[in-house]
Amino acid sequence: MKLYSYFRSSASYRVRIALNLKGIAYDTVPVHLLRDGGEQLTPEYRKLNPDGLVPALEVEGAALQQSLAIIEYLEETQPQPPLLPQSPLDRAWVRGLALSIACDIHPLNNLRVLRYLVRDLKVSEEDKNAWYRHWCEQGLAALETTLARDKRVGTFCYGDTPGLADCCLVPQVANARRLECDLSAMPTILRINDACLALDAFARAAPAAQPDAE
Amino acid sequence: MKLYSYFRSSASYRVRIALNLKGIAYDTVPVHLLRDGGEQLTPEYRKLNPDGLVPALEVEGAALQQSLAIIEYLEETQPQPPLLPQSPLDRAWVRGLALSIACDIHPLNNLRVLRYLVRDLKVSEEDKNAWYRHWCEQGLAALETTLARDKRVGTFCYGDTPGLADCCLVPQVANARRLECDLSAMPTILRINDACLALDAFARAAPAAQPDAE
Repeated sequence: MKLYSYFRSSASYRVRIALNLKGIAYDTVPVHLLRDGGEQLTPEYRKLNPDGLVPALEVEGAALQQSLAIIEYLEETQPQPPLLPQSPLDRAWVRGLALSIACDIHPLNNLRVLRYLVRDLKVSEEDKNAWYRHWCEQGLAALETTLARDKRVGTFCYGDTPGLADCCLVPQVANARRLECDLSAMPTILRINDACLALDAFARAAPAAQPDAE
Repeated sequence: MKLYSYFRSSASYRVRIALNLKGIAYDTVPVHLLRDGGEQLTPEYRKLNPDGLVPALEVEGAALQQSLAIIEYLEETQPQPPLLPQSPLDRAWVRGLALSIACDIHPLNNLRVLRYLVRDLKVSEEDKNAWYRHWCEQGLAALETTLARDKRVGTFCYGDTPGLADCCLVPQVANARRLECDLSAMPTILRINDACLALDAFARAAPAAQPDAE
């Protein structure tokens, strides 16, 4: 298995955590999102993934795209340890948490989007950072409300073993911290994040631990 | 089953298609995203869905959020007719198509995002529309490449029965047309979109066919 990954990409980070939690060995193929106008935009990489985004997972002669689709694939092909609960209602809840990060927070703070704001819309550095913090803080605040009131939350987002929602939460919190978002009113998120970071599977997936880390 | 929905919300539209394809009866609870500053932002609705977004599906005493999580729930609880293929590799491919729309195109063109551009960043109407078209055309162009080259594509995104990717494609094409995006170089997408729109399940899910349509 080959993971096309950029150390700082939080979508790649999610998949790295999932691979580690399941104990699946893989090779990292670094794709540098900034070098030479972006290695993800070369014709060669686009042949693999027309979206021109990381991550992509090469497996069974195919190249899978989209972090959550990749993690669901891992869950289906290597079910142990499970990253999703058993009951459909609980699975929907966990997927909802993951998607609220993957659809409602992260896409707005992606590199290509921030670039468009600055280059095409001539948005100032200050306004760009305010944009970033706005979506990140608003999205995480909603997530905090959802997590704080739900009895299914344990040490991790669902119970006492890490799963799909945690794979998404930790990279998002890392981004939030990098951009100095205000997380002071989010004790549940911070507690879960700390519990995750204490695990080897999460530590080995961190941006700083990647072969292409700068 | 109660679907909290706004006629023009493309995430709601996805779920309406899926419910119809599976022949599941449901009641629509209209949530007007523009009236009185947005009914989705009232404390009452946020109690149901802290994200303050539509859709939400009330079922089994719970309120499910996130369109793709809701559709996966429907797939797990009412498997016939299936909206996902059988093999993990094909499932990952179909989920990848759906997520490339749900994560890489739609979130950037959401009402709340367009509003932020205009209100907070003082972006002109012209630049706002260019932003919209940029992400929509770029994302759909990548999707066209992916679909045009893959033998799994049939009348629909996967084979000859409509599924999860089609549930996402049709609402996105509707948005693209509303904003006059250039889809002339996307014959595969347009062909699949036409095949979908000819089906009753898609027709009944269309914005204009909703009780809250304006």
